[in-house]
Amino acid sequence: MKKTYLFTPGPTQVPPEVTLAEASPLIHHRTSEFSNIFANFSEDLKYLFQTRNGEVFTFASSGTGGMEACVANSLSQGEKVIVIRGGKFGERWADICKVFGVTVIPVDVESGKAVNPVLLENILKKENDVKAVLATQSETSTGVLHDIAGIAKVVKNHNVLLIVDAISGIGVHPLMMDEWNIDIAVTGSQKGCMLPPGLAFVAVAPGAWEAVEKAQLPRYYWDFRKMRKNLANKTTAFTPAISLIMSASKALSMIKEEGIENAWKRHARLAHATREGVRALGLELFAGDDSSNVLTSVKAPEGVNIDSAIKKLRDETGVTMTGGQDALKGKIFRIGHMGYVNEFDIVLTISAVEKCLHENGYKIELGKGVSRVQEVLYKK
Amino acid sequence: MKKTYLFTPGPTQVPPEVTLAEASPLIHHRTSEFSNIFANFSEDLKYLFQTRNGEVFTFASSGTGGMEACVANSLSQGEKVIVIRGGKFGERWADICKVFGVTVIPVDVESGKAVNPVLLENILKKENDVKAVLATQSETSTGVLHDIAGIAKVVKNHNVLLIVDAISGIGVHPLMMDEWNIDIAVTGSQKGCMLPPGLAFVAVAPGAWEAVEKAQLPRYYWDFRKMRKNLANKTTAFTPAISLIMSASKALSMIKEEGIENAWKRHARLAHATREGVRALGLELFAGDDSSNVLTSVKAPEGVNIDSAIKKLRDETGVTMTGGQDALKGKIFRIGHMGYVNEFDIVLTISAVEKCLHENGYKIELGKGVSRVQEVLYKK
Repeated sequence: MKKTYLFTPGPTQVPPEVTLAEASPLIHHRTSEFSNIFANFSEDLKYLFQTRNGEVFTFASSGTGGMEACVANSLSQGEKVIVIRGGKFGERWADICKVFGVTVIPVDVESGKAVNPVLLENILKKENDVKAVLATQSETSTGVLHDIAGIAKVVKNHNVLLIVDAISGIGVHPLMMDEWNIDIAVTGSQKGCMLPPGLAFVAVAPGAWEAVEKAQLPRYYWDFRKMRKNLANKTTAFTPAISLIMSASKALSMIKEEGIENAWKRHARLAHATREGVRALGLELFAGDDSSNVLTSVKAPEGVNIDSAIKKLRDETGVTMTGGQDALKGKIFRIGHMGYVNEFDIVLTISAVEKCLHENGYKIELGKGVSRVQEVLYKK
Repeated sequence: MKKTYLFTPGPTQVPPEVTLAEASPLIHHRTSEFSNIFANFSEDLKYLFQTRNGEVFTFASSGTGGMEACVANSLSQGEKVIVIRGGKFGERWADICKVFGVTVIPVDVESGKAVNPVLLENILKKENDVKAVLATQSETSTGVLHDIAGIAKVVKNHNVLLIVDAISGIGVHPLMMDEWNIDIAVTGSQKGCMLPPGLAFVAVAPGAWEAVEKAQLPRYYWDFRKMRKNLANKTTAFTPAISLIMSASKALSMIKEEGIENAWKRHARLAHATREGVRALGLELFAGDDSSNVLTSVKAPEGVNIDSAIKKLRDETGVTMTGGQDALKGKIFRIGHMGYVNEFDIVLTISAVEKCLHENGYKIELGKGVSRVQEVLYKK
């Protein structure tokens, strides 16, 4: 009786109601029935990004496609951007920019640490003609949360676009598009939105359109101008991923029902419990105080081949966590707790971590992690 | 008791088995379980494109995204291509090329007619430095089938790439990637593959890689080189649309089980019956002898507001057909019959056409269309 538990940093668990919506009979996309669903859903996406005046576009693509859309729509060849890099996804911003001939000034942050906005401020004062700052809210590869509010405050004082990868962060941590003056933000479906992968959502603030109009990079599939024109008519430029949009429509209505502020609080509470559970087992957080509420990245315990240990756990029990990527391979493991996650999921996760460590010869007092989780979660 | 019947040129009907596969529990994409499914599925895609040596890549995107991938991976700014245009999708090739700074030499074909390969031959003889010919197999906007085998024969005599939009054609008409020497071909999921929209499949022949390596257009999400490297490791460059790939894996296994040659025959037979049924009602085919087996495009009957008539049919009965697009709006209607379609679907379709015409005051003898369909299909 193996069950699959996705405690990974994406894809995440999908509520059965959402799966049912995905499996509902396909309707044609050029009908008023679909248009109404799509228009309502696009309104709900504004709530997700906390924007009243921005527009949110839905692409059939992974989150990376959405990132490419941000670059292709706002920049021109030879322009200069600042990219905050402290992991795989910060690097991805830089890689995309380079492919498009955009000059990257990197702000390299130590792996496992959040950027200090003062660093950014200094570069912005020094460098002329910076067109945009590209940042990552929750760096999934390290488990770090970057302070987008702080970054936005710095960027605001300069005539520079702020483009944010909120792929794993949104729905978990506040992302206040309007309040913080974010110009463009992107997310993917398979994170806090509780959906299967395959959709990217990109929010564009009113102030970003001047840049979009001026941008010279080639774009067809990703073209915000086409998306905007079609969204105004409650439709899409190209055939949308209908079944995924049906599921997304359901998931967004669930987020609205919970209230996004409550979702933020829930994630903070569950992430805190996870961190406490992990620490009670004598393990160390990789991202320390900079830990995101999206996932908990944990230093691999001494003497344990962590990649083979979590693979064995997954194969035998269905509990799926992930190891480190690239330079962090074998050095950390990552527990995702975003989206469709509750108290008992955290108890289960830490129980699985205990089982995994115990079976791999790492000395722990069985129950210590789970007890601490329960203490944090249940004690009034 | 309204049921939804998708007789549109995409999205098409999805078998319940495929929907169930889409709704199966999400698994993580960096696992051997997913890798094995993905590798088998990618092999099945080769069968779909009838290629042994080519590689087929799966993108989370609509078909248009796949078309952009073809252009971005094989061409450079300022290069010259020939685009066969005889409808909306031929025009789309040209539009994408123009956005990327590629010079387009159009071969404009009358709407509702297939291109004569001799026309192409003449241009290829006259023009120097043509890098590629971009063609459309089944032009969904007009219902025309272009002779890709004939086009390929012409292109073969010149040192020119052949790139084919087989989005609606594949699985319906033969597309012999290896035998015909097609360099790159693209399809979307929501047509003959019996899937929801959201995936594009792009097949790349061994001979196309030199062009891919030399191409200078910027590409990140669409990069064939990254796709190839990852496919060799049974994985994907970016998070794949897992639930759609699960459904695609099931659909492809159903195509294999039927045998693609049988699928081609089935579509030919059903398309023929549809055309005969339509004619028996006194209606005229828009694409005449050039009609594709993907869909039947029919001239709007005199005195009937066809767009409102098919909208009423859809709203009242759930039977969904589509009208004409752009210049053909109000002038034709289109009946899709690709993918998960059998004899009774054609009887049902023509019955719905009769109901629609009858209710909109167009004089027909009720039963004449359906009788003709049955005659064609049932008589031994």
